[in-house]
Amino acid sequence: MNTPKVLIIMGSDSDLPNMKKTQTILLQFGVECSIRISSAHRTPEITKEIITSAEKQGYSLIIAAAGLAAHLPGVCASYTTLPVIGVPMENGPLSGLDALYSIVQMPPGIPVGTMAIGAAGAANAAHYAVQILALRYPDLSQKITAYREKIKNDVMQKDSALRNNL
Amino acid sequence: MNTPKVLIIMGSDSDLPNMKKTQTILLQFGVECSIRISSAHRTPEITKEIITSAEKQGYSLIIAAAGLAAHLPGVCASYTTLPVIGVPMENGPLSGLDALYSIVQMPPGIPVGTMAIGAAGAANAAHYAVQILALRYPDLSQKITAYREKIKNDVMQKDSALRNNL
Amino acid sequence: MNTPKVLIIMGSDSDLPNMKKTQTILLQFGVECSIRISSAHRTPEITKEIITSAEKQGYSLIIAAAGLAAHLPGVCASYTTLPVIGVPMENGPLSGLDALYSIVQMPPGIPVGTMAIGAAGAANAAHYAVQILALRYPDLSQKITAYREKIKNDVMQKDSALRNNL
Amino acid sequence: MNTPKVLIIMGSDSDLPNMKKTQTILLQFGVECSIRISSAHRTPEITKEIITSAEKQGYSLIIAAAGLAAHLPGVCASYTTLPVIGVPMENGPLSGLDALYSIVQMPPGIPVGTMAIGAAGAANAAHYAVQILALRYPDLSQKITAYREKIKNDVMQKDSALRNNL
Amino acid sequence: MNTPKVLIIMGSDSDLPNMKKTQTILLQFGVECSIRISSAHRTPEITKEIITSAEKQGYSLIIAAAGLAAHLPGVCASYTTLPVIGVPMENGPLSGLDALYSIVQMPPGIPVGTMAIGAAGAANAAHYAVQILALRYPDLSQKITAYREKIKNDVMQKDSALRNNL
Amino acid sequence: MNTPKVLIIMGSDSDLPNMKKTQTILLQFGVECSIRISSAHRTPEITKEIITSAEKQGYSLIIAAAGLAAHLPGVCASYTTLPVIGVPMENGPLSGLDALYSIVQMPPGIPVGTMAIGAAGAANAAHYAVQILALRYPDLSQKITAYREKIKNDVMQKDSALRNNL
Amino acid sequence: MNTPKVLIIMGSDSDLPNMKKTQTILLQFGVECSIRISSAHRTPEITKEIITSAEKQGYSLIIAAAGLAAHLPGVCASYTTLPVIGVPMENGPLSGLDALYSIVQMPPGIPVGTMAIGAAGAANAAHYAVQILALRYPDLSQKITAYREKIKNDVMQKDSALRNNL
Amino acid sequence: MNTPKVLIIMGSDSDLPNMKKTQTILLQFGVECSIRISSAHRTPEITKEIITSAEKQGYSLIIAAAGLAAHLPGVCASYTTLPVIGVPMENGPLSGLDALYSIVQMPPGIPVGTMAIGAAGAANAAHYAVQILALRYPDLSQKITAYREKIKNDVMQKDSALRNNL
Repeated sequence: MNTPKVLIIMGSDSDLPNMKKTQTILLQFGVECSIRISSAHRTPEITKEIITSAEKQGYSLIIAAAGLAAHLPGVCASYTTLPVIGVPMENGPLSGLDALYSIVQMPPGIPVGTMAIGAAGAANAAHYAVQILALRYPDLSQKITAYREKIKNDVMQKDSALRNNL
Repeated sequence: MNTPKVLIIMGSDSDLPNMKKTQTILLQFGVECSIRISSAHRTPEITKEIITSAEKQGYSLIIAAAGLAAHLPGVCASYTTLPVIGVPMENGPLSGLDALYSIVQMPPGIPVGTMAIGAAGAANAAHYAVQILALRYPDLSQKITAYREKIKNDVMQKDSALRNNL
Repeated sequence: MNTPKVLIIMGSDSDLPNMKKTQTILLQFGVECSIRISSAHRTPEITKEIITSAEKQGYSLIIAAAGLAAHLPGVCASYTTLPVIGVPMENGPLSGLDALYSIVQMPPGIPVGTMAIGAAGAANAAHYAVQILALRYPDLSQKITAYREKIKNDVMQKDSALRNNL
Repeated sequence: MNTPKVLIIMGSDSDLPNMKKTQTILLQFGVECSIRISSAHRTPEITKEIITSAEKQGYSLIIAAAGLAAHLPGVCASYTTLPVIGVPMENGPLSGLDALYSIVQMPPGIPVGTMAIGAAGAANAAHYAVQILALRYPDLSQKITAYREKIKNDVMQKDSALRNNL
Repeated sequence: MNTPKVLIIMGSDSDLPNMKKTQTILLQFGVECSIRISSAHRTPEITKEIITSAEKQGYSLIIAAAGLAAHLPGVCASYTTLPVIGVPMENGPLSGLDALYSIVQMPPGIPVGTMAIGAAGAANAAHYAVQILALRYPDLSQKITAYREKIKNDVMQKDSALRNNL
Repeated sequence: MNTPKVLIIMGSDSDLPNMKKTQTILLQFGVECSIRISSAHRTPEITKEIITSAEKQGYSLIIAAAGLAAHLPGVCASYTTLPVIGVPMENGPLSGLDALYSIVQMPPGIPVGTMAIGAAGAANAAHYAVQILALRYPDLSQKITAYREKIKNDVMQKDSALRNNL
Repeated sequence: MNTPKVLIIMGSDSDLPNMKKTQTILLQFGVECSIRISSAHRTPEITKEIITSAEKQGYSLIIAAAGLAAHLPGVCASYTTLPVIGVPMENGPLSGLDALYSIVQMPPGIPVGTMAIGAAGAANAAHYAVQILALRYPDLSQKITAYREKIKNDVMQKDSALRNNL
Repeated sequence: MNTPKVLIIMGSDSDLPNMKKTQTILLQFGVECSIRISSAHRTPEITKEIITSAEKQGYSLIIAAAGLAAHLPGVCASYTTLPVIGVPMENGPLSGLDALYSIVQMPPGIPVGTMAIGAAGAANAAHYAVQILALRYPDLSQKITAYREKIKNDVMQKDSALRNNL
């Protein structure tokens, strides 16, 4: 088993700031990743090609972000048996509720593991990917444990600072 | 120009009762139609094949019904330049609100003309199809006008009956 | 058959920026269009007059935009057998959800093909109109195919640029 | 000033059970009323005719009930300066939330006084009508006061029965 | 019968900008009005006093505006048999949806005629009040007809300007 | 300090089945309670009288249940400085979402501690009341601890039974 | 019985501005309080430790604020029999509706008294805490009565100022 | 690497019918699983114990189902670095929307991969688990591919039957 690789795909370049955040976190865990822009509706064939060839190219899982009708994660899931993590983007008048429903309400047989709407979901897509990959790449487990320790300490330090200042 | 033909596609056979209603109305207007079951997620290649070949097989437009994540209408729209009419099905805990959002909130460039949730939408998909086809098959216009006259008379008779009974 | 013509109608001049976008796209496809401001509630007789005479004046379909209670698209649909495309505007405290429900939930017999809320819907109203008109004006089909090619290339170029920059 | 008269109008005979309840209450207050079935979309001209002639025929106000897109109350309001009371019907997958938004979110200048969704609203349309009519027919005020006394006593009796039984 | 008088009541001075709009419209129609700030929850006795004495002080109807839990309109309705018009304010994280539900969903027997959320509703509360008062003060009818003519002309002029400029 | 007493008030006798459940739980904890039916809108004066005299009659807190517009808990809160626990009832087309918003969204200064919609909330109103009363009646603390132990054991037994049966 | 003490806990330091408001109000009533930052998910053990030791450290009740999934109040409630007051924070794309549902919909046996979303709820958490504590610390009752008098006078002065200025 | 094992945990035995469905699917793929009932709120220590020891006991991932406030999946996620799959149950007046929000809207750092509400999500939790486990147990990949082939054939057969019968 070589290094873990994740494929990030998004339907529009307006999702890039969120997905760069996802990428940054993956890299912090030593997980390699590629980012692709490909639309479920504007470039369906290319999307299919990217996803159907993902496994052969060594990717272990797909992170797909989309807003509005947000079909991309489900469309990816239909073309691969790799786990797909879906991130509903917040843009548009319904603040991402449309994207959430469209990503999470997948019919039996073709699941998408759905994250929170927007920035929180973009971060958690990376964390969830690392937790999944840790099943195969055991050294990731220790990194996650260290990360959990770190965010625990962050909260404790903020709590401590607050108590000293009050 | 020969007879108008509509392709009805649905993601699951649980949508059949509603789509038979759509079919019945189309036939009443003398519009030929085929019904296919093909899932956006379980049979993506077949869906693509059905839709990309629809125009060559003489279909003038697509009616696509789906519930829950309801990607089918949008996926169809990505594979054809024929008009796609989407019908959100009512099944599931969100009563079709998920399907409505997923069908109507399509991104710029790939539209789906969305109908009401459930039975009302299933009927209106047929009526809307006929109104669209009438642009090319002018004799349909008269049938629509006759139908409008009929539903007007139905309302008037109910009103009349009510006034006589009260 | 002469040139295709679309009638755009909106309930308030606050909808104009969105509808100009619709107009721009229609013109890019060589579809002629007129824009009218007429309210379902403030000028019901004029609305009726505009819509009932639309077909005779050579219009092939109606695009109707409205916010809040958003009755205009449905009212137009009641006065014509031409296809009506409805665009829910985003203004007001409910961000266009009120307009979406009011436009899409039409009762059996009088359909409105509903687009996404706000700017996405304004663009797609034009694209959907062109797809419908292509049934009668076949040269539009090639333009749509060219447009689809263009937006596909746009996505591919963005994807390409992203991959080169990362 | 002669006897008060209210015009009840509904878009479909499926609304009749609720509107009979409205009628019953009006009659209990000695307010005369007529019930008409006329659709905003299927019989727009008849609806217009009914509403524009309502005042001349001695009606003082309009109660309009509708479900789904529920344009009828707003359409009535556009054709008369009499007060219009709107009742959102509960039918359909959205349980009347669509009808509520469509009736209450009227734009400036053409108001509809909106009641609760379904049976509670059907009853209150009658009570609100009587309260409005009491401004012109003062003897109605005493009837309302008596009614208020009655429902107060009903609550008190139930409270009393409960306390004795526990 | 002397001059018509309306009592405007709001739960918080943050509602004042909207209610001044209501007042301005009422004054344009020659309807006298008083504005009071009194909370359903912070000053329940004063609210009761204001409302129970309203009829004796010559007010013909109550306009009540409130946000969030928005009990004020319903509480007013419980203390008077005058018609109460409720206006849901837009403030707070739910954009007035909480206020809408709280005002419109009144139980049988104690109705509140509910207007649109926010500014549109504030305007329409005045128009609806005038339409109701016109039943008793017939000269108001002509003013409403003139107003309707005016807003019709406004729309027509905007339509005309648009057509000339395009 | 004598025995703890809770006053349960509900707006309609349709809420009685839920409130009897509340009562049963209170009695199991040895907390005395009275149940009253009094409407915020139909019997506002009696509601005021019941609530303003509650403290003098030895009640330590109020549990108020209501559906639809659900003003009762907030109205109670305006008349007392005792803690008010509000329970949104599930009845009506909006399944208690209207009642939830109306009870929980109280403005600053007059809080209502809100429970879950329907049966879960009815049970928890009793448990929350007991937890509050335990601050003053310390022997209740032990009963709550025993109850917590009991529901813990119930879950453990179900878990155990499940593991043995599978 | 010594001085009343309240423990405020929040899941993230982004909730601090709201919770400082809660603290300020508690201090105005002479109620001592500590503020802690501890996450239900990032520091579950510390949260448990803080809450399980709260009673022994002399706290009488817990105020817990959280946004998004907002498990903190419920998690606190599972570790103590002290009353827990939950405040849904407004942050995130769903404007606190997610937090409201997550805090208020607690299952039978483990209640959380839920306040309004955001700033209104932050203020009311303090007021509700004081009302609860007044059961045990009777001198708080007078302070609440004085506060109620104060906010009543504030409303009356604003009303008075408005009437003089108009 | 030995056989894959999944831990299913649910907050209440009312979730059992759905989780048995999950179990059945896992077993069809040859994935061993245990089902536990343990509540986030009623048995927090046991929940912690079950989850913190899961990895050592050879479980590779957790499937957690819960309704209403639905904290269980998030609480599990806080106690393990194994991937947690959350399933929102449909019970209660909000039809599982409360559970969906509570499960999916997790804050950064502690993700839960969320499935559809109710039965669809219960099935997909199993499928998603198998897709994740296939990263470590490669023979599962073939089973998933076979399953995908099977559901594809099911759809094709239904389509075929439909076309022959019409």
